Amino acid sequence: MQVTGDLLELRKIRASMAGTFGLVPTMGALHEGHASLIRRAGAECDHVGVSVFVNPSQFGPGEDLGKYPRRIGPDLEMLERLGVAAVFTPAVQGMYPDGYQTWIAVEDITIPLEGKCRPGHFRGVATIVAKLFNAFRPDRAYFGQKDAQQAAVIRRMILDLNFPVEPVVCPTVREADGLAMSSRNAYLDPRERKAAAVLYRALAAARERYQKGEREGNTLRAVMRAVLDSEPLARPEYVSAAHPDTLREVRTIETGAGVLISLAVKIGETRLIDNMIL
Amino acid sequence: MQVTGDLLELRKIRASMAGTFGLVPTMGALHEGHASLIRRAGAECDHVGVSVFVNPSQFGPGEDLGKYPRRIGPDLEMLERLGVAAVFTPAVQGMYPDGYQTWIAVEDITIPLEGKCRPGHFRGVATIVAKLFNAFRPDRAYFGQKDAQQAAVIRRMILDLNFPVEPVVCPTVREADGLAMSSRNAYLDPRERKAAAVLYRALAAARERYQKGEREGNTLRAVMRAVLDSEPLARPEYVSAAHPDTLREVRTIETGAGVLISLAVKIGETRLIDNMIL
Repeated sequence: MQVTGDLLELRKIRASMAGTFGLVPTMGALHEGHASLIRRAGAECDHVGVSVFVNPSQFGPGEDLGKYPRRIGPDLEMLERLGVAAVFTPAVQGMYPDGYQTWIAVEDITIPLEGKCRPGHFRGVATIVAKLFNAFRPDRAYFGQKDAQQAAVIRRMILDLNFPVEPVVCPTVREADGLAMSSRNAYLDPRERKAAAVLYRALAAARERYQKGEREGNTLRAVMRAVLDSEPLARPEYVSAAHPDTLREVRTIETGAGVLISLAVKIGETRLIDNMIL
Repeated sequence: MQVTGDLLELRKIRASMAGTFGLVPTMGALHEGHASLIRRAGAECDHVGVSVFVNPSQFGPGEDLGKYPRRIGPDLEMLERLGVAAVFTPAVQGMYPDGYQTWIAVEDITIPLEGKCRPGHFRGVATIVAKLFNAFRPDRAYFGQKDAQQAAVIRRMILDLNFPVEPVVCPTVREADGLAMSSRNAYLDPRERKAAAVLYRALAAARERYQKGEREGNTLRAVMRAVLDSEPLARPEYVSAAHPDTLREVRTIETGAGVLISLAVKIGETRLIDNMIL
């Protein structure tokens, strides 16, 4: 496994690799969710590259950039075990040097949901992913379904900017009680950790109603809200039942279109998100 | 020479070419200025690709998108003669399909000069150039010094977004009386065509003063204005003496920094630009 924080060295490492290349962009603090992306990339590509970079431009002013977990030692051990070929660990100054001034904006689909709660977040995400595409030149790039809107934004950017990269979105990996794996779960104290399972329970309740034939967006949203309301530690930021591509809230789900149900909920000071596509 | 308007076909053509690849992005209506870029690319690269696309997103509402000269027949003959390997002639709908919503903004250096006169222009330029980079995957890309700010914007975008492309900026090609070659010169009637040489005369007058030791921005700008004022058909939009990298107006030119003197002038209804780096 070759590890570098230097862009030119990364380009050399990459140029030495023949065959197909899969990229898994991460912010580190790796967990089983990341591992599942890396295994999938390894199964589909000749070489796998991983970036480990806590990207400041996707954090808002009041957010958790400072306390976001950083543990490069254990991360590299895990990447080595998973058979990763190349790891890119750039410094902030390397990615955003003095005078940096270029940003990629994806418009319509970044307006609702996370885009509304976290202004500027997707501008930071789209920009760093484009930079990583240009650094690694992957054939495929792997993202988790847990960040559903992020996956939609990146898919749109790839299409619009003609990036020759195939996006692959992989299923959310969950703890035993249904909580979606996330580096931010480390913020939760034991009481909060227990309460956090309410996100999954809310989604599961809406899924059950959907499977029984419910097609009204308002009803699905109300079902999720009711479950969240039963947990005193949970403060919902949004509860959504939206079109999977446009991310617009649906009134009645059309046959064949499906629906993305998603949540952002604060448990104590920790903001968690989760979703399902039905 | 292989010509296609289809992105997937272009990717196939490109994938069949070994060695280095040079891209010359154009809006067609090709002239000797374009030819000089293509010859330079041919001298430095194993294969040369040219795009011919009148990019609507870089034209403002009141601008000349509708009347911009289009003559693909003569353009292709010229490209064939110049030994170009691949020509990309996409349709507008192909580059900006329904639902298109991704834009690249370069910030500080797009604020003055052309950016001030043509809001949104450089967003369109940066975005289409990024799309063409992703479509052609060139090793080098060739731009004319005539569009000095455009060259600076693209250089900045390449650096900021880690595009693995080397930008090459080539000297402005001029008519016998000094008028910079431009597809827009075709708009000029004979009287306007004669008057249009005033841009070059203004720049040349400032250059002469600079060569005699003048280092005050205000003086250089005044010298150019005085020459432009002598031509009744000329209506200046801006007259600038700026730092070549930041494009900020200079008070006193620092030793070793050089200066970009530039002009935008309306001759009748035709807007012309020109510049020199001193």
